[in-house]
Amino acid sequence: MATTEERAGGRPTERTRVVRVRDGVRSEIPDVLAAEEPLEIRLNGEPVAVTMRTPGHDTELAVGFLLGEGIVQPRQIANVMECRPDEGDGGIADVKLGAGETASGGWQRNFYATSSCGVCGKASIDAVRVAAGAVPDGPAVDREVLQGLPETLRAAQRVFDRTGGLHAAGLFTPNGELEVLREDVGRHNAVDKVVGRSSLDERLPLNDRVLLVSGRVSFEIVQKALVAGIPFLAAISAPSTLAVRLARETNMTVVGFLRPGGFNVYAGPERAAGL
Amino acid sequence: MATTEERAGGRPTERTRVVRVRDGVRSEIPDVLAAEEPLEIRLNGEPVAVTMRTPGHDTELAVGFLLGEGIVQPRQIANVMECRPDEGDGGIADVKLGAGETASGGWQRNFYATSSCGVCGKASIDAVRVAAGAVPDGPAVDREVLQGLPETLRAAQRVFDRTGGLHAAGLFTPNGELEVLREDVGRHNAVDKVVGRSSLDERLPLNDRVLLVSGRVSFEIVQKALVAGIPFLAAISAPSTLAVRLARETNMTVVGFLRPGGFNVYAGPERAAGL
Repeated sequence: MATTEERAGGRPTERTRVVRVRDGVRSEIPDVLAAEEPLEIRLNGEPVAVTMRTPGHDTELAVGFLLGEGIVQPRQIANVMECRPDEGDGGIADVKLGAGETASGGWQRNFYATSSCGVCGKASIDAVRVAAGAVPDGPAVDREVLQGLPETLRAAQRVFDRTGGLHAAGLFTPNGELEVLREDVGRHNAVDKVVGRSSLDERLPLNDRVLLVSGRVSFEIVQKALVAGIPFLAAISAPSTLAVRLARETNMTVVGFLRPGGFNVYAGPERAAGL
Repeated sequence: MATTEERAGGRPTERTRVVRVRDGVRSEIPDVLAAEEPLEIRLNGEPVAVTMRTPGHDTELAVGFLLGEGIVQPRQIANVMECRPDEGDGGIADVKLGAGETASGGWQRNFYATSSCGVCGKASIDAVRVAAGAVPDGPAVDREVLQGLPETLRAAQRVFDRTGGLHAAGLFTPNGELEVLREDVGRHNAVDKVVGRSSLDERLPLNDRVLLVSGRVSFEIVQKALVAGIPFLAAISAPSTLAVRLARETNMTVVGFLRPGGFNVYAGPERAAGL
């Protein structure tokens, strides 16, 4: 097999050759893969996490990650330094806080476990939940608008078209206009990038926006939306139990299985207008 | 909206009521969600990580996770203690090593980042790669057998049938017999459970087995297969760049887009017999 790969060098895709088998017939063809590389996220020079991500929008990813984990607040951030090695496969994004700002002291619990746990009583939602209040009421989204969001997202997914291998997250107005689209091999990363972009644009909290994700809705996706103040979360696929529970506790709308013919509302049905 | 949820209590699903909209018509129906709860993984009593997982097979998940991260070796494990709180949503699985055994000293790098990194030269694959050699040659898998694996996996996915919301990993013989199937809200967890089960059964390394995953193939999925000695990794969807690169470096076969009509071979085509 040919291994004449182009190095990604920070690009979201990479070309390679693969053996294709269709109806029993073999051929060797060029193919395009979604790029995956490590990014080290730092806070004031201190390493916080290494995440596997699709290169591009690293600044947004680092900011969105730190916000989503409750480690920093939007207004604390002064700037972000990005750097890419001459050789090697990864990158570093270092989020710098403004003078006198300090990160939430508890952030290490995210990467170490909860050593304060009792023998078995505290390995609960609380151990992984980030402090964030409920979202305010509104906005309502028209049913026809809602059902049109997946097509809009899909049409805008340029990398997916070439690779078939990426998750997407899209930020929409209540009228169905797509404002920010990000793609990544990691579902959480795509959401972090959208939130990070919004933070860098000083647009948080996003109390009048709809977030659509291409896959499933886990607890962490709801949490990331909550931290960004997003009241309406829609998904092409299913939510988990804990995702629905957190959404119901925080006044968030969760729509799942959003398809051309319909959808399910798991939390906050009052925002799905016309129901 | 009704919130008469049954508590999951360690079960893989949970019932709830949702608002269903089809062709503009609203109804309120019972629905089944895939359960997601935190599990704290401990090693000799020390917290290592909290992972969000679908309850069930927690012992397997803890063992598979620690093996996949290169923290412990299969023969070091003496037993695993599981515990579930009377109240709260999570659980704890504590992996105990045999007398005199010590874990790989470097494990904290997985949860802290690589503080030994240079300014920008080392945020590379090496920073996230677990030490594991290449897999040995063989086995070959017949094309017809290969194309039949997804249907076998899907037919055995009981939880998915009810929720539409779970990833699956299946361990197959080269003849297409399904030996172990695990489902989880987390893609990595499903693989960890399969590897953990095999380790508890003292069947590692799995040098004559095929692993099929329901989704995409990331770097970490290849790494987990590699640590378990699995030479043949197949997936319904696309692999990433780094997944393919690691597979090619370690003599592993990676098949993607495995569908009824065909598939693509990204690495190790010699094991796809009859090509």
